[in-house]
Amino acid sequence: MNGAESLVETLAGHGVEICFANPGTSEMHFLAALENPRIKPVLCLFEGVATGAADGWYRMRDAPASTLLHLGPGLANGLANIHNARRASSGMVNIVGDHAMAHLKYDAPLASDIEGLARPLSHWVRRSVSASAVAPDAAEAIAKAAEHPGKIATLILPGDASWGDAGPPGGAPRIGVLPRVEAGRRAPDAGRVEQVARVLRSGEPAMIIVANKATRGRALELVGRIAAASGARLGSQFFTARLERGAGRTPVERIPYAVPQAMAFLQGIRHLITVETGEPVAFFRYPDRPSLLKDQDAAVHTLVAPDEDSEMAFEMLLDALGASAASALVQPRIETPMPSGALNPISIAHALAVAIPENAIVVDESLTTGRETMGHTMGARPHDLINNMGGSIGYATPVATGAALACPDRRTLCMVGDGSAMYTIQSLWTQAREALPVTTIIFANNSYAILKAEYANMGAGAAPGPRAASMIDIDNPTIDWLAMARSLGVPGMRVETAEDFTQAVIASTREEGPFLIEAKLYP
Amino acid sequence: MNGAESLVETLAGHGVEICFANPGTSEMHFLAALENPRIKPVLCLFEGVATGAADGWYRMRDAPASTLLHLGPGLANGLANIHNARRASSGMVNIVGDHAMAHLKYDAPLASDIEGLARPLSHWVRRSVSASAVAPDAAEAIAKAAEHPGKIATLILPGDASWGDAGPPGGAPRIGVLPRVEAGRRAPDAGRVEQVARVLRSGEPAMIIVANKATRGRALELVGRIAAASGARLGSQFFTARLERGAGRTPVERIPYAVPQAMAFLQGIRHLITVETGEPVAFFRYPDRPSLLKDQDAAVHTLVAPDEDSEMAFEMLLDALGASAASALVQPRIETPMPSGALNPISIAHALAVAIPENAIVVDESLTTGRETMGHTMGARPHDLINNMGGSIGYATPVATGAALACPDRRTLCMVGDGSAMYTIQSLWTQAREALPVTTIIFANNSYAILKAEYANMGAGAAPGPRAASMIDIDNPTIDWLAMARSLGVPGMRVETAEDFTQAVIASTREEGPFLIEAKLYP
Repeated sequence: MNGAESLVETLAGHGVEICFANPGTSEMHFLAALENPRIKPVLCLFEGVATGAADGWYRMRDAPASTLLHLGPGLANGLANIHNARRASSGMVNIVGDHAMAHLKYDAPLASDIEGLARPLSHWVRRSVSASAVAPDAAEAIAKAAEHPGKIATLILPGDASWGDAGPPGGAPRIGVLPRVEAGRRAPDAGRVEQVARVLRSGEPAMIIVANKATRGRALELVGRIAAASGARLGSQFFTARLERGAGRTPVERIPYAVPQAMAFLQGIRHLITVETGEPVAFFRYPDRPSLLKDQDAAVHTLVAPDEDSEMAFEMLLDALGASAASALVQPRIETPMPSGALNPISIAHALAVAIPENAIVVDESLTTGRETMGHTMGARPHDLINNMGGSIGYATPVATGAALACPDRRTLCMVGDGSAMYTIQSLWTQAREALPVTTIIFANNSYAILKAEYANMGAGAAPGPRAASMIDIDNPTIDWLAMARSLGVPGMRVETAEDFTQAVIASTREEGPFLIEAKLYP
Repeated sequence: MNGAESLVETLAGHGVEICFANPGTSEMHFLAALENPRIKPVLCLFEGVATGAADGWYRMRDAPASTLLHLGPGLANGLANIHNARRASSGMVNIVGDHAMAHLKYDAPLASDIEGLARPLSHWVRRSVSASAVAPDAAEAIAKAAEHPGKIATLILPGDASWGDAGPPGGAPRIGVLPRVEAGRRAPDAGRVEQVARVLRSGEPAMIIVANKATRGRALELVGRIAAASGARLGSQFFTARLERGAGRTPVERIPYAVPQAMAFLQGIRHLITVETGEPVAFFRYPDRPSLLKDQDAAVHTLVAPDEDSEMAFEMLLDALGASAASALVQPRIETPMPSGALNPISIAHALAVAIPENAIVVDESLTTGRETMGHTMGARPHDLINNMGGSIGYATPVATGAALACPDRRTLCMVGDGSAMYTIQSLWTQAREALPVTTIIFANNSYAILKAEYANMGAGAAPGPRAASMIDIDNPTIDWLAMARSLGVPGMRVETAEDFTQAVIASTREEGPFLIEAKLYP
């Protein structure tokens, strides 16, 4: 078999089930190797869709997907969503095709420093130096990506490593019957657990801030028991990689985005207990506001470091508290009445509280529209909420694409501002091609509306002047979102009232494939 | 004034007339400073549009534009077209906003190694460490970008350097009445010129390969005289940053893209004389083909190094040849009859030969459709032809946008394959917003058609299997290009015959603003 075939065998053998691809000339042997039925290739029309989809896949599967990218510029186009995935602790194996090694010295037009481009946002970078090195290199990449927390592994695949002879099938090291790579579990230090138990027993105001694997499944239930038994509040950073929430789940309070609100929210809390995350930090620094959000005299206690196991830690802590029999806090279902009238952040949140179907995946990049009101959906039917962890906008439509491929039996709702949606709108085409159950909701306020508030927050002035405003408003021309959806093969509908919006979301969840709703907002 | 204001003053003072912007929270003071009427801000919905437009601006103005990008991921989204610009020797000043310096240690979500991301594709990278450092840093960035050949300069602007006090207007070094930065001229070594003169006098078959500034204006006319006087052929690499061609210009033969054709083209040429470029190299390496394209016994002579001045060199060479009075080769106008029938590469080339208006700018990224047939437009009305120098597809619609802003009185024709157009389709919106005279021609073959040939060329197999083919065909779903154009505010028309195509191109050149033509191709 050639190097490309050994690579696909290795990916499949280690449980990498999917490859989000935007190939070019140097990846033709890899394309040929994708005839292997053990891995599903998914074509993306832009590399940021591929890397964002891999992030979405990981969020729902806890297992890395692979991407196929074309030399340095192809990787570059994927980097913004690699940044977001890295901040979400999503594992990912990027395969970056390159020129044959003998060709590099001629500095052909597409040549660039791929390692240099990959390193700032990858945890692991390797160039395979021969066809027979590809399989062991790939196995290492997958193992790295599958660590806890997930890692970005980037494997550079020269043309001749791809087409060269890698030996007989099964002959390469670790090829054949390969175990699915599972992340190891590492227990936290018992002394730290004991220290946190003392804090909780003290009765002083405390908040446990959970992240990554601690915001779902058994870990979330366990920490819900700790909160119930100890009286500690349970919080999350403003952004969470994947939060299981809604009726029947342990509720988690969300630290607000805006600095003054976040500081008010944390006021009076004497102890912040962190789980797979650090203490709360402002997203941006503003001229007259601090970076750190907690009270100055509040203490920070690390209960679970990012590479440790939250379930183990919570079990140890429940033991230490003598509370192993406690019941978890549980969020009741809140039956929200159908909203009516104008579309605004509150009526939109109420509509979602009504319309989110059982077991939905909600990918949120609504920024201005949804940022401060998602709390109103806390009592909706149980669902997974996915946020943008890296802050590079254009993450939602690709992540929704990958999440839907990971969970084809669930409905994915992708809530995205019009400004954000334009970065990676090519996702719609892949959704149509794969007939994915995704409802994309475009909040069309014809503006980078978040920047209007930030202009004043930053102290740039009370309000933007005409030229600055023209860099914030995107109403000239107005984007026709139904035409955009149609052009990429996705049906859609435009709504302007809360009633129509609610009905449209409900109707969309009964579609087999993708659907787009343009929610027209007026200032 | 604050740092951002001093930056805009410095840009304007050094002749940077335009800023292609995709701003975020950390760039609010820069936005405020753009109220300065001496610089035109142009909003782009994706960073790759901004950097590609800056490339297009430089190609037509020989002067750097600036871009405004939002932290590391914003820069990352612009890198692919920065790569293309770098390969085109286009100068560019990238302003990358970053967090305030005091905020960096908290590793907030959007933080990343911006220097690390910038370095592989920038010639110059600097982080301004204070507000008062911004103006001198920016002056240096502009001087670097304006060198010959043009350079990529990337200036990182922390929030506090932006909002901090930079002193009184005019107080910062080198602000005030600033000269427009002009690239220096450097003469080539006289010995090299004499050596080339000897080669040309020998009468052995020779080809002068011209690039960058040598493919237009007086330099092109001078080298046309050298060719006429010496009998040397005049060639260009397959891709040229900007070639003045058509009736009345000195004709330049184009080295073919495909390796066997390129080798056949160069067969028998004993001397390759290079001007602002190197010897011809294959775009990709294929398993059974060489990287170098010339005959094995051919000699390569550098007449003009990339940082030297072609006009000076050609004058010296004409002197050495005693041919200063020679007349240049001139391409006559070829009146092509209006084509009819099916749209195919030949009829499309004939249509363009008829329809290209006087003084048009033709940006070509037609790949499969236009690659081997553009020669048929050699006798068209005089025009500028712009190619993708870096090979990262998705360059054409942004470059056309920037070229049209640089030359609002000329019509820009942007010829682009459907696969290529999808990378940076957001350009259309900026074209509509700025009412730019751009005709975008989408060659819709519903395929990354170039890869079908490359599959066999690479030896991956005679033809792609079903899964590999599904990674090459983009016909499921078919992209509706008229809906795409309408969604972004651009009128359009679909054509299926050579007559309709010709008429549509001609009609589009009479539009005031942008227009899109979908040329439907059938295999």
